[in-house]
Amino acid sequence: MLNIAVIGAGRIGHVHAKTIASHPDAKLALIADPFGDAAEKLAAEYGAAHTTDVDSVFTDEGVDAVVIGSPTPLHIPHLLAAAKAGKAVLCEKPIALDMKDVEAAQAELDAVEVPVMFGFNRRFDPSFATLHQAVADGKIGNLETLLIISRDPSAPPAEYVKVSGGIFRDMTIHDFDMARFFLGDITEVYAVGQNFNPAIKEAGDSDAAVVTLKNADGVVATIINNRHCASGYDQRLEAQGATGTLNADNIRATTVRLNNDQLTDAAEPYLDFFLQRYADAYRLELTSFIDAINGGTKPLPGIKDAIEALRLAEAATESVATGKVVHL
Amino acid sequence: MLNIAVIGAGRIGHVHAKTIASHPDAKLALIADPFGDAAEKLAAEYGAAHTTDVDSVFTDEGVDAVVIGSPTPLHIPHLLAAAKAGKAVLCEKPIALDMKDVEAAQAELDAVEVPVMFGFNRRFDPSFATLHQAVADGKIGNLETLLIISRDPSAPPAEYVKVSGGIFRDMTIHDFDMARFFLGDITEVYAVGQNFNPAIKEAGDSDAAVVTLKNADGVVATIINNRHCASGYDQRLEAQGATGTLNADNIRATTVRLNNDQLTDAAEPYLDFFLQRYADAYRLELTSFIDAINGGTKPLPGIKDAIEALRLAEAATESVATGKVVHL
Amino acid sequence: MLNIAVIGAGRIGHVHAKTIASHPDAKLALIADPFGDAAEKLAAEYGAAHTTDVDSVFTDEGVDAVVIGSPTPLHIPHLLAAAKAGKAVLCEKPIALDMKDVEAAQAELDAVEVPVMFGFNRRFDPSFATLHQAVADGKIGNLETLLIISRDPSAPPAEYVKVSGGIFRDMTIHDFDMARFFLGDITEVYAVGQNFNPAIKEAGDSDAAVVTLKNADGVVATIINNRHCASGYDQRLEAQGATGTLNADNIRATTVRLNNDQLTDAAEPYLDFFLQRYADAYRLELTSFIDAINGGTKPLPGIKDAIEALRLAEAATESVATGKVVHL
Amino acid sequence: MLNIAVIGAGRIGHVHAKTIASHPDAKLALIADPFGDAAEKLAAEYGAAHTTDVDSVFTDEGVDAVVIGSPTPLHIPHLLAAAKAGKAVLCEKPIALDMKDVEAAQAELDAVEVPVMFGFNRRFDPSFATLHQAVADGKIGNLETLLIISRDPSAPPAEYVKVSGGIFRDMTIHDFDMARFFLGDITEVYAVGQNFNPAIKEAGDSDAAVVTLKNADGVVATIINNRHCASGYDQRLEAQGATGTLNADNIRATTVRLNNDQLTDAAEPYLDFFLQRYADAYRLELTSFIDAINGGTKPLPGIKDAIEALRLAEAATESVATGKVVHL
Repeated sequence: MLNIAVIGAGRIGHVHAKTIASHPDAKLALIADPFGDAAEKLAAEYGAAHTTDVDSVFTDEGVDAVVIGSPTPLHIPHLLAAAKAGKAVLCEKPIALDMKDVEAAQAELDAVEVPVMFGFNRRFDPSFATLHQAVADGKIGNLETLLIISRDPSAPPAEYVKVSGGIFRDMTIHDFDMARFFLGDITEVYAVGQNFNPAIKEAGDSDAAVVTLKNADGVVATIINNRHCASGYDQRLEAQGATGTLNADNIRATTVRLNNDQLTDAAEPYLDFFLQRYADAYRLELTSFIDAINGGTKPLPGIKDAIEALRLAEAATESVATGKVVHL
Repeated sequence: MLNIAVIGAGRIGHVHAKTIASHPDAKLALIADPFGDAAEKLAAEYGAAHTTDVDSVFTDEGVDAVVIGSPTPLHIPHLLAAAKAGKAVLCEKPIALDMKDVEAAQAELDAVEVPVMFGFNRRFDPSFATLHQAVADGKIGNLETLLIISRDPSAPPAEYVKVSGGIFRDMTIHDFDMARFFLGDITEVYAVGQNFNPAIKEAGDSDAAVVTLKNADGVVATIINNRHCASGYDQRLEAQGATGTLNADNIRATTVRLNNDQLTDAAEPYLDFFLQRYADAYRLELTSFIDAINGGTKPLPGIKDAIEALRLAEAATESVATGKVVHL
Repeated sequence: MLNIAVIGAGRIGHVHAKTIASHPDAKLALIADPFGDAAEKLAAEYGAAHTTDVDSVFTDEGVDAVVIGSPTPLHIPHLLAAAKAGKAVLCEKPIALDMKDVEAAQAELDAVEVPVMFGFNRRFDPSFATLHQAVADGKIGNLETLLIISRDPSAPPAEYVKVSGGIFRDMTIHDFDMARFFLGDITEVYAVGQNFNPAIKEAGDSDAAVVTLKNADGVVATIINNRHCASGYDQRLEAQGATGTLNADNIRATTVRLNNDQLTDAAEPYLDFFLQRYADAYRLELTSFIDAINGGTKPLPGIKDAIEALRLAEAATESVATGKVVHL
Repeated sequence: MLNIAVIGAGRIGHVHAKTIASHPDAKLALIADPFGDAAEKLAAEYGAAHTTDVDSVFTDEGVDAVVIGSPTPLHIPHLLAAAKAGKAVLCEKPIALDMKDVEAAQAELDAVEVPVMFGFNRRFDPSFATLHQAVADGKIGNLETLLIISRDPSAPPAEYVKVSGGIFRDMTIHDFDMARFFLGDITEVYAVGQNFNPAIKEAGDSDAAVVTLKNADGVVATIINNRHCASGYDQRLEAQGATGTLNADNIRATTVRLNNDQLTDAAEPYLDFFLQRYADAYRLELTSFIDAINGGTKPLPGIKDAIEALRLAEAATESVATGKVVHL
C-alpha cells in the first residue's frame, strides 16, 4: 500500500485523488493546496488529511509518493523538492511552460534518482495501449502514418487560456507525447493554428490546430486538435502500416443504438471529458507508477519524454508564429 | 442473348422488366398483361413489345424464356403453359396459395423438363449468399441457430392483403425459403401472429409474426416478421454455429454518418424496398437462371423449393389458427 | 454506510463481495459459508470477517443487510431467516428450483416486510436500462417485438448442470426476467430445446434453446440461448416498436479495430463473462438496493418478479418436455 | 440519347466506355485510340464503332460529345479540337502536367464555349456528395476541418510513375479537387512526401504524402495519401464543423461480419479499386454532364477547377522539394 499525497486541489487534483482513493494498492494520505479550503474539501471527500502548507508534504514521513497537480510554473520546483526528499513523483503535464525553465533546472533534473513519472495518461488508455502494442507486435508491419484526432468538448475560459501557455503546451502536449510514443523523436514540425472562438483569439491563442510531425524514418503523424467538439470528447487514433491499419474509436457510456424514420444506428454522444473518458487510463497510469516503485524500475513516460513533448509544443508555437516548418 | 417475356405488368413485373432490360446477357422481348395498358406502358419504358393476350407469349417463337409475375392463382397455369411450349420459366413466389392446387397439378409439374426456377431472389443477395457460402465452407462450424429479421417498410393495402393468401404465403414465404436454404427440410413449425394494424386485422390476417422452425438435426431458425418498420426495409440474417457467428446487416444508400450534440454515428434509414434493396439479387438471380439454361443444368431454387416453402406457409397459418405446434 | 453480509463464498459470492467492497456506500461486513475455508479466503481478500456458521449472520447486530448467494435450495430458508431477523435481503436467482417450494413458503414470503430484492442484475446494466427507459419514454412507440440474445461463453460442467434445475431455471431465468421487464406478465410460452453438447444431453438438459413468449397485448419476446458462444459472452437486446427500433450490442474491453488484406473493422471478442460484462450492473443493482433501504421504498425486482420468472422457467421446461405451447 | 465518343482505350477509357454503354441516356458511339487494336477490342465489348484515327472523332457528325481519356499531355490538344468542332467535352484529370501548358493555351481555353467538364468523379460519389450537401445545408455549422484519407490498394508500376507527373498530379489531384469542393480556393499548401517503395523512390517520386491546405477563412484540409493500402481502396472523408461532424466510410461488397474466438464484427476488405468503388460516381458524373448539355448550363467541375487543382499539385510538389510552405 503506497501512501500518496496530492499537491493541487484543482480539477486534475480531483481526478488523481479519486483515482488514488479507489486504487487497491494506494492510499490517499494527504492533499495540499495553498489556496482557501480547496484541500480540505477534497480531502473530506475521501477521508484524507489536508494542508495549506505545501512544503509540509515533502517532510511528511507518512508520504511515500507525491502526485504534482499544481500550476505548471510550480511543477519543476515541486518535483525537485519532492525528489530531494526521497519521494517518488508523478508529475502532471506539461513539465514547464518554457524550455528555459527546464534548462535552468536541467542539472538538478538529471540528478533526480527517485522514480519520476509524467502524467501522459493516454499511453495507458486500454484502447490506445492495445493499439500501440499491436503496432509493436508487427500487426500492421512498419508504421507509415499516424493520425491523432483530439478534440475537447468545449473550450476553457479565456482566463485559463491566457495562463495556459497556449494550445500546444496545454492541450496538444498529450498528442505530442502520443506521437512520440509511436514515432520516437521528431525531426520536423509544421503547425497551422485556427481561430473560431473570438475570446481565445483575443487571448492570443489558437482554438484549433493541425500539426504535421515527421521522424527521421519519414513516418508522419498528423494531429487534428480543436478546443470544442459538439459530440463530446473526441479522442481517436489511426495507425497505418505496410500490411494493415489499426483504429481506436471514441467511447460511449452505453451501446444503445436508435433506428427510426429519420436515422439508423444512432448512438449517444461520446463520454464528455477526461475524468470519464480516461478513468481507466488514470487508474492504469497509477498502477504503472506503483509497479515501477515497487519493482525498482524507471517509470515511463519519464523526464526525457516530458522535455521532448515540451520541445514539440515550442516548435509548433514557433511554426504558427512564423508560418514555417521547424526542424529539430 | 436470351429473349425473355414478362407476364404481369404490376410491381414485380416492373422489377423484372428493369432487371432484364439492363442485363448484358438478356433482352426484354415482350411484356404481357391482360389489363388495360399496363403492358404497353411498361414495354415503352424499355423499348420492348407488348400484348394483352397472355397466351400469345407461349406461341411466340421469339421468346426463349418467360418470367411469370402474374397473380398467384395463375402461376401454375402459366408455368405449365410456358413449359409445355418449351420456354424456360422463372416463376414468382408463391407457387400457389393452396397446396391443393399444387397437388392437382403435381403430375404435370413433375413432368416439367424445361428449366423452371422460382423467384426466391434473396438467395442471390450478395450478403446473404456470401453468408450462406461461409457457413457451407465451415467458417462457423456446425450451424446451431439461424435468425431472420424481415420487416417491410409499410403494410400493403387491406385490399391486397385480402387476396394475398395471408402474411405467411405472401411475405414470410421468402423467409421460409431462406430458412430452408440454411436448414434444409423443416420438421416443426410454431408461429405466433400479431395484430397492430386494425385494417389488416379486419382483413383476417396478421401484420406481424414470429415463427420458430426446427429441422431433424435440432437446428432452429427464428423468423421475425413485420409488415412495417420505421427505418425502412429491415432485412437481416444471423447464423450462429459451433465456432462462430455470421451476420448480414441492412443496406443504406450512402455511408454518411452524422455526429452532433444529440447523437453520434447516425446513418440514414435503410434502402426503402425490394427494388432498391434487392436490385443486385434480382440481377444475380437472372444471371443464375440464364447460366442454368445455357449450361443445361437445373436452376435452383426449383419446384421442390417452391412447394416446401408453401408447405411451411400453410403450417404457420395452421399454427396461428390452432395455437399449436405443427409437425411435418 | 450499509453493513452487508454475504452468504455463500462461491462464484456469485465473489462477485457480490467485490462489488460491495468497492461500493462507496457499502461495507463488506461478513462472509458466511459452511464449507471449508471458502469464507475465510474470500473475506481475507477484502478485509471482512468470516464464519462457517451461516445462522450467526442473522443474529449479528453489525449486519444491516444480507446478500444470499447460497445454493438455490437454501434461498427461501435463508431469505426468510434474514427477513425475520429484520435484515434487508438481496437474494440471487432463481428464488427456488421448484414452484412447490415457493408455494409451501408463500404465506411467509407474503408476510416479509423488510426490503427484499432479487438479483436480476441485467435490469441495471447501463445499456439495457437505457434501452428500457427509452422504450418507456416512447422513443419507439408501442413495443411490438423484443429479441433477447443471450449466450454464455462456454458450458458449465455436467456436474453443475445436473443440480442446476436445467437451462431455463439456471440461465434463461435472467432472460425471462428481462422479457417481463419489457412485456409484463406473459400468457403463452413455447420453448425448443437443443442439444449440441453430449455431456449436457446425458445430464438430461438442453444446452441451447429458443423461447417464444407472448403477453396479453400480443407483444412477443424471443429468447435465443446457448451455453456456448465462440466470441465470448453474447448479450444483446433489440426492441422494435411502432415508430422505431432500439438495439444494445455486446461490450468489448477496447475499441481497437484491425484492417488488413483479409478483413476490416475487426474487433476483439466480447467481454468474457458476467463479472466483467455486468460489473456496472452489479454495482448499480447494489446502489438501487441501498437506495431503496435508505429511502424506505420497496426494492425491485421483488418477490413477485422472482416467482414469475420461475413460473416461466417451469413453463419452458414443460414446453420442451411436451412439445406443446404452455398457457399461463 | 447523347452519342458519345471515347478517346483513349486504356484503363480509364474502359471505365467510361462501360459507364456510357450502360447509361440509359447515352450511347457509346465510337472509341478512338491510335495504338494497335485497343480501340477495336474495347468497342467490340459494347458494340460501338472504333477508329485509330483520333482526329476523325472531331469531324464525325454522329458524335455529340467526347470523353477524353488520352494520355495527359494530349488533354489540352484534344479538348480544344473537340470544342472547336462543337462537341461537348468531358476531360479526364489532370488537365495537364505543367501549368505552362495551360498558360500557353489559356486564351483558347477561355474562349471555349461548348460545355466542358473535368472528370473529378468523386464529387459525384453518393456518400461524398451527400456529405457535401449536408455541410452546405448547415448540418454541422461552419466548416472547420476537412480530413481526406485516400489510399490506393497498390502502387502502379514505376514505368507509369515516371511519366505520371508525380503523386500530386496523378493521384492527389482528386483530393485537391475534393478539398476545393469543400473549402474553395486554397491560400497555403504544405506537403510532406514519404518513401516506402524503393522503385518509386528511384523513379523520383513519393509513394505516400500528407498535405495540409488552408483557405482564407482558416479552414484546414488534411490529405493523407498512400499508393498502397492492405485493405483495399481506402477512401474516406470527415468534415468537422461548429455543431457537428460528418463522416463517409469505405464501401464493401457485402455487409457480412464474422465473429469467432479471435475477432468479432470482422468485415471483408474494401472494394478494390476505382471502377468498383466509384461505379456510381462515374454514372452520376455522366448524368450530370448530360443534364448540363441538355439543360444548357455550364457543367461543373469546369476548367477553373481543373486549373486550380493542378496549381495545388504544383504547389505540393514544390513544397516537398523545398521543405517549405507554399503561399498561393
